[in-house]
Amino acid sequence: MKTVQVETPGGSYPIHIAPGQLSTIAQSVPADATAIALITNPTIATHYGSQVHDALATTGKPVLRIELPDGEAYKDWQTLNLIFDALLAYPCDRKVVLVALGGGVIGDMVGFAAACYMRGVRFIQVPTTLLAQVDSSVGGKTAINHPLGKNMVGAFYQPVAVQIDTDVLRTLPAREISAGLAEVIKYGLIIDAEFFAWCEENAAALRALEPQAISHAIQRSCELKAHVVGQDERESGLRAILNFGHTFGHAIEAGLGYGEWLHGEAVGCGMVLAAELSARIHGLPASDVARVRALVEAIGCPAVPPSMDVERWLSLMRVDKKTEGGQLRFVLVPRVGEAVCQNVPDDEVRAVLQAVAAVDVA
Amino acid sequence: MKTVQVETPGGSYPIHIAPGQLSTIAQSVPADATAIALITNPTIATHYGSQVHDALATTGKPVLRIELPDGEAYKDWQTLNLIFDALLAYPCDRKVVLVALGGGVIGDMVGFAAACYMRGVRFIQVPTTLLAQVDSSVGGKTAINHPLGKNMVGAFYQPVAVQIDTDVLRTLPAREISAGLAEVIKYGLIIDAEFFAWCEENAAALRALEPQAISHAIQRSCELKAHVVGQDERESGLRAILNFGHTFGHAIEAGLGYGEWLHGEAVGCGMVLAAELSARIHGLPASDVARVRALVEAIGCPAVPPSMDVERWLSLMRVDKKTEGGQLRFVLVPRVGEAVCQNVPDDEVRAVLQAVAAVDVA
Repeated sequence: MKTVQVETPGGSYPIHIAPGQLSTIAQSVPADATAIALITNPTIATHYGSQVHDALATTGKPVLRIELPDGEAYKDWQTLNLIFDALLAYPCDRKVVLVALGGGVIGDMVGFAAACYMRGVRFIQVPTTLLAQVDSSVGGKTAINHPLGKNMVGAFYQPVAVQIDTDVLRTLPAREISAGLAEVIKYGLIIDAEFFAWCEENAAALRALEPQAISHAIQRSCELKAHVVGQDERESGLRAILNFGHTFGHAIEAGLGYGEWLHGEAVGCGMVLAAELSARIHGLPASDVARVRALVEAIGCPAVPPSMDVERWLSLMRVDKKTEGGQLRFVLVPRVGEAVCQNVPDDEVRAVLQAVAAVDVA
Repeated sequence: MKTVQVETPGGSYPIHIAPGQLSTIAQSVPADATAIALITNPTIATHYGSQVHDALATTGKPVLRIELPDGEAYKDWQTLNLIFDALLAYPCDRKVVLVALGGGVIGDMVGFAAACYMRGVRFIQVPTTLLAQVDSSVGGKTAINHPLGKNMVGAFYQPVAVQIDTDVLRTLPAREISAGLAEVIKYGLIIDAEFFAWCEENAAALRALEPQAISHAIQRSCELKAHVVGQDERESGLRAILNFGHTFGHAIEAGLGYGEWLHGEAVGCGMVLAAELSARIHGLPASDVARVRALVEAIGCPAVPPSMDVERWLSLMRVDKKTEGGQLRFVLVPRVGEAVCQNVPDDEVRAVLQAVAAVDVA
């Protein structure tokens, strides 16, 4: 088992990475927990519900099961309230421990429920998608969506542990593997040029879930994310670089309707656009833009954005949480392995989108 | 102007106490705020809306006004969402500053909205009731209600400043002054015997809002609360003593329906019951129980609880956030000026309630 330790002002906790972690989850339940609430969706419950329930039951504590409807469309207050309803009906006290068994949607909602229930109870992340394993389950960002914007209501709230079972990736559709790999290569692009090169060499092995390759990719991604989050838990500075590709990506998701493209797919494509913008603003060499595009394609993500009016792009991006005083703000890579966060004039963004649209039409 | 400083891991901030503070609120708005959202209810807006709006406008920043429906019945997700709707429609970014102008309901909801909007923005408490000035606006407890329990969904989240204008108390109904004084005498009872004696001597002056007396009472209450919260922001230990009288009080509020008794009235009566329980468990002298009862009556709060079946009391109290593993937990005062928090067997609680009910019927 590999363990990555996350250290933040809001809490320190281990990320355990190994095959079979679903069956060893009892190790992460604090001894003084009065009850455990296992929260998942019907799809994941079918695959892993009993296995995780049985593993939790070995603690001797009562295990409450809560199932939420599946999908980003349900990442809202109504669904969140199903958790509170069940916890209060039981009733669970402040020493309940919530277990988030699922992808990013389950992790974000259970984390936010843990942040708010009785003003804060403990929770464990058990991510079952590659995207959640390398990104959303680590670092304590939790949220629900609002009709006017994604993840607009939430909290920075750290889990007590993250249990990553690499075996579960085998039941994921290929498209979700590709979406998760988009966040993996992101870490290389913004922080670790060597890891980016390693991803280029191992793209095929990663898509094929070759055990050693995928295990290394998850571990390195968690290490790099833990490093950033440890320095800036609440995204007042450095942490914003993790949003590389996300401003364009969010606009794609919002413009097409959430769920049309997977989040990781939108981020993958967004990184290509952000690389183009980095070339305009910081002179990132065209050869490196080409490397980004090639790797996004190699991991199976779309490199060409959907057709959308340029002004629509801009208005969608202006709702982004990084916006300050109406100015668009982007993470840019002056070179591979290095990132900066800065305001960018609308016209520079328009130029990138128009150039891409021209290529698209041609 | 008197200033009390609050120091917690979640933030340090000043409480400014003086007549006329509504007009000097601009002093508390951080220089880098991109917008200000003034949030209140229609009743308070009529009295003070323009005055505070004009004071905020002197910052030169855009001031957005949001009005929420008035009352505890609206302290729910639907109303909270009105804040998010308005902030996102504007749209306000992460550097917006929310201003909570109102009593405990407004303070709790705006504080929770600030905790959650884009995962946390800054806010200023401007409490307009005595209860909010001496209690709820200080210490960072924020929450909304759930159909199955009060304040069940919330966060510990500190404001950047608290502005207490003692002038506003003049427009409060006498009943609300009494309710606020219940929390004032609570601080004496649990921490400061000398202050409790001072309250006994000044009960009439406090009810009459005699300026020097009320100003001292507010300042001392804020100091004592800041002292406790500074040692235990997230209520893992000491802070729980601030809930003296609240377990009984919450049962009264829930049993009668929220809003029937004011929160402070329920707490006032709850303190009498908690003093009786302290006599049973810790031998608090009968003469001190009598002092508590007399002072609760002297400040104009009910000392006799509403008639309610004993088992109903117990089941209502079991939902309390202090409950652990189904055991009822109470704050008790072994002597005036000293408090402890502990589990209490159901039968001891039954005995107190039965004794009080017997007196009530007689």
